[in-house]
Amino acid sequence: MKTALSALGRRTAPPAISWLIKSALSRPKLISLAAGFTDNATLPTEISRQLLDEILRSPKTGRPALQYGLTAGESHLRQLTATHLQKLDGGHDRAHSPERVLITGGSQQLLYMTLEALCDEGDLVLVEDPTYFVFLSILQSRGLRARGVRLERDGVELAHLEKILTELKKSGELRRVKALYLVTYFQNPTGATTRLAKKRAVLKLLKKFEPAAGHPLYLIEDAAYRELRFDHGEDVPTALTLPGARDRVIYAGTYSKPFATGVRVGFGILPEPVYNAVLRIKGNHDFGTANLLQHLLARALATKLYDRHVAMIRKNYARKARVMQLALAQHFPTKMEIWSAGGGLYFWARLPKGIATGVKSKVFQAALKADVLYVPGEICYADDPSRAKPDHELRISFGSASEAKIRAGIQRLGAVLKKFVS
Amino acid sequence: MKTALSALGRRTAPPAISWLIKSALSRPKLISLAAGFTDNATLPTEISRQLLDEILRSPKTGRPALQYGLTAGESHLRQLTATHLQKLDGGHDRAHSPERVLITGGSQQLLYMTLEALCDEGDLVLVEDPTYFVFLSILQSRGLRARGVRLERDGVELAHLEKILTELKKSGELRRVKALYLVTYFQNPTGATTRLAKKRAVLKLLKKFEPAAGHPLYLIEDAAYRELRFDHGEDVPTALTLPGARDRVIYAGTYSKPFATGVRVGFGILPEPVYNAVLRIKGNHDFGTANLLQHLLARALATKLYDRHVAMIRKNYARKARVMQLALAQHFPTKMEIWSAGGGLYFWARLPKGIATGVKSKVFQAALKADVLYVPGEICYADDPSRAKPDHELRISFGSASEAKIRAGIQRLGAVLKKFVS
Repeated sequence: MKTALSALGRRTAPPAISWLIKSALSRPKLISLAAGFTDNATLPTEISRQLLDEILRSPKTGRPALQYGLTAGESHLRQLTATHLQKLDGGHDRAHSPERVLITGGSQQLLYMTLEALCDEGDLVLVEDPTYFVFLSILQSRGLRARGVRLERDGVELAHLEKILTELKKSGELRRVKALYLVTYFQNPTGATTRLAKKRAVLKLLKKFEPAAGHPLYLIEDAAYRELRFDHGEDVPTALTLPGARDRVIYAGTYSKPFATGVRVGFGILPEPVYNAVLRIKGNHDFGTANLLQHLLARALATKLYDRHVAMIRKNYARKARVMQLALAQHFPTKMEIWSAGGGLYFWARLPKGIATGVKSKVFQAALKADVLYVPGEICYADDPSRAKPDHELRISFGSASEAKIRAGIQRLGAVLKKFVS
Repeated sequence: MKTALSALGRRTAPPAISWLIKSALSRPKLISLAAGFTDNATLPTEISRQLLDEILRSPKTGRPALQYGLTAGESHLRQLTATHLQKLDGGHDRAHSPERVLITGGSQQLLYMTLEALCDEGDLVLVEDPTYFVFLSILQSRGLRARGVRLERDGVELAHLEKILTELKKSGELRRVKALYLVTYFQNPTGATTRLAKKRAVLKLLKKFEPAAGHPLYLIEDAAYRELRFDHGEDVPTALTLPGARDRVIYAGTYSKPFATGVRVGFGILPEPVYNAVLRIKGNHDFGTANLLQHLLARALATKLYDRHVAMIRKNYARKARVMQLALAQHFPTKMEIWSAGGGLYFWARLPKGIATGVKSKVFQAALKADVLYVPGEICYADDPSRAKPDHELRISFGSASEAKIRAGIQRLGAVLKKFVS
C-alpha cells in the first residue's frame, strides 16, 4: 500500500542538523560549537520569575495572561514592539506602528507563514549565499527554488544580485521570484551585517525589476540577531526606515534570542496585503501566540528590565567572542580566512578550497573523534543549480559553550585543522 | 500590478467568526454566548504563579525552561502526557508511549501540520456535519475538499459514512480521501460524544475501504474537550485503545482548555510515518513549542495540581451548564430541539427549518439589537456540494460568561427567538 502522505509530507527532509544532534548525544565529552543555542548562564531566570509573579499575583493581570488573546497579538506588546523598534531605528517612525506588528511563535513562524502567503510550489526566493539553514529547510519542504546571491562582509554583492535578476528576467523566470531574504545583522552563519546603503540599493534594484516580474518583489529582512551587538556604537537602521519600504519590506524580529529562547516570541512588520494574508494564515496555525509569554515580554519591556538584560548579555557575548577570537588566533592554521562578527553568536571560517568540511568529510570525522563539533558550511548553501556548493567552510558558535569550553573546543578543532592545512 | 501572494495567500479567508468579533467590539453591553473562551474566574493564576516561581527560582530548573528544547517536546512532559492518557484510558497502553507523543502549540497547530503532512490541494477530508469551524478554515485555506458525515448524538451516522465512502469509491474519488476528522468528546459545536463502539465501527469501515483508496485512511480524533466532563463516571476510551489503532489513529489532545488557554500547549499521538512527517514540518514551523510553557505543564502534571485544577473546573462548568439548561427551559421556545452536553462548553439549538440564523438573518440581527451574540450553526458546516448547508441552528456557549450573564443572555435570546417561532 502506498503512503497517504502529501507531496509536502513526503518531501520535507529531516533538519540539516539532525545528524549533528545525534553525534552530540552519543559523545558525552563532546564540546559543541555547533548549536545556535544562547548562553545558559545569563538566561533571565530571576527577571522572569519576578515579572511572572507580578503578573499572576493579581487576577486583574493574571487572568488575561492565561486566557486566549487576539490572533495578531496582545495590544500592549504590539505597541511596545513598535516603540522599541522606533528607538532602535533612532526615532524613525516611517514604517513602525502597532497595527503593522504581528506577534508570532518566534520569528521562525513568521518566516514560515510569510513563505506560505507569498510562494506557490516552484516559485523562486533569492537568498544570501550562505544563509540561515532552517530558512532553506522551509524552501525545500515547500518545493520552492532558491538562487544564492554572493555575500560580502557588508551584505550581498549588488552586482551579483543585478546579474541574477537580469538573467531571470531574460529566462522569463522573474515572474516566479517573490522575495529576497536577507539576514541583515550578524548573519547566521557568517556574522556579516548589511550596511544601510546596501539595503537601499537592494530595494532600488528590486523595484527596478518589478515591472518585469509583474508583481511586488519583497525584501524579507530577518533581524534575529540585531540586539546581540557587542559595541555600544549606533545600530544600523532597518530597511523599514528607507523610502518605499512600507510597501515592500517584511521585517522579522524576535525577542527569543535577546531575552530567552524558551520564551519563543517573535514579531513581524509587514506591508498591508502580506500582513492580512499572514494574519489569516496564523488564524489557522494557532489563532495567536501563547498569551502568557506575550504578557511576560510586555512587562519586561515596559519595566525596562528587558533593556537591562540585553545590555548585560551583550557584554557577555562580547567577552565570549573575544575569548574565541584569541583562541582562534592561537590555535587555528594561519592559512584560514576567518570572519569575526561585531555581534550575534557565530564566527565563520574558511579552509583552503578542496578541504571539505561536510559531515562525511575527513575533517568532520576527525573533529568528532577529537570530541568537538561545528556546523559544516555546506548546509548553509541553498540548492542552487547555477553554482557548485562551497564545501570548505565552518560555522563556529560561542553562544552556548562556556569560556573554558570555547578555549578547549577551539584548541581541539585547531589541532584537527592543522593536520589538513599544512 | 498583480499581487505577489500565493494561491494559498489569496485564498485564505478571514476567520468565520471575525464578523462576530467585530460585532461584539462595537457593543459594550453585549453578552457574548458565542466565544469558545474558557471561564475567566477559574483560570489557574495561583497554581501557575506558584509553579513558575518554583521552576525559575533555581537555575537548575529555571535555565532549561528558558532555553531551546527538542522539536518533539520536553521529554518529561512527553512522558507525563503518555501516562496521563493511559490513566484516562483506564490503564490501557496499547498505543500510548512517550516516543509517540509530539508536543505542539495548542492542538490547533497539530491539526494544521497533520493536514500539511497528509493532504495535497484538492484532496478530500471527511468531517462531521457540523464540525469545528477552524478545522474547516484550514481546509478552505489549503484548497482541500470536504464531505460532511451526518452527526447523531452518539457520533457520526455509520450508514451515512458507508454511503459516502461507497459513492467516492464508485466515482474514483476515494483515492483523494486521506482522513476522517472526528471531534469525539463534547463536540464543538454540538456537544455530542462519540461512543466507543462507533469509533470501532468507524475504524473498521475505513479499513474496509483502504484497498480501494490505495493508501491508509486515517482517523483524526480531536479530543480537545475530553477533560471538561461534568459527571464523575467513566471516561469514554479513545480510539487509540482499539485494535489496529496504532497505525491509523491520529490523536489530537490539548492542555489549553483544561488548564489555561493562555498557556497553549497541545499534543498529538500519531502513527509512525505521520509522526515523522509532522515532526519535520514542525522543525520548519518553529522547531519546538516554547519550553517555559512545557515546563509549567510538566510540573503541574507531576505535582497533581493539574488534576486538582481540572476537578475544580469540571464542577464549575457543570454548574454553569445547569444554569444555562434551566434558563433555556424557561426562556426558549418549546418548538426548538436542544442538544445538551455532558461536558465541554456548548449547547446546540435547532430552530424549525426555514428560520435562518446566519449573520445576515433577521434572527441574528434581532439578537444583536438585543445585545446577545451566538455562533450561527451554518459556519460549522463544510462546503460540501452534495447537500444544502443547514442554516437554522445556533451554538451557545456557557464557557466564558458568568452565571448571571448566562441567565440574562438566554433570556434576551429566548425573547428574540420567540418572535420568530410562534
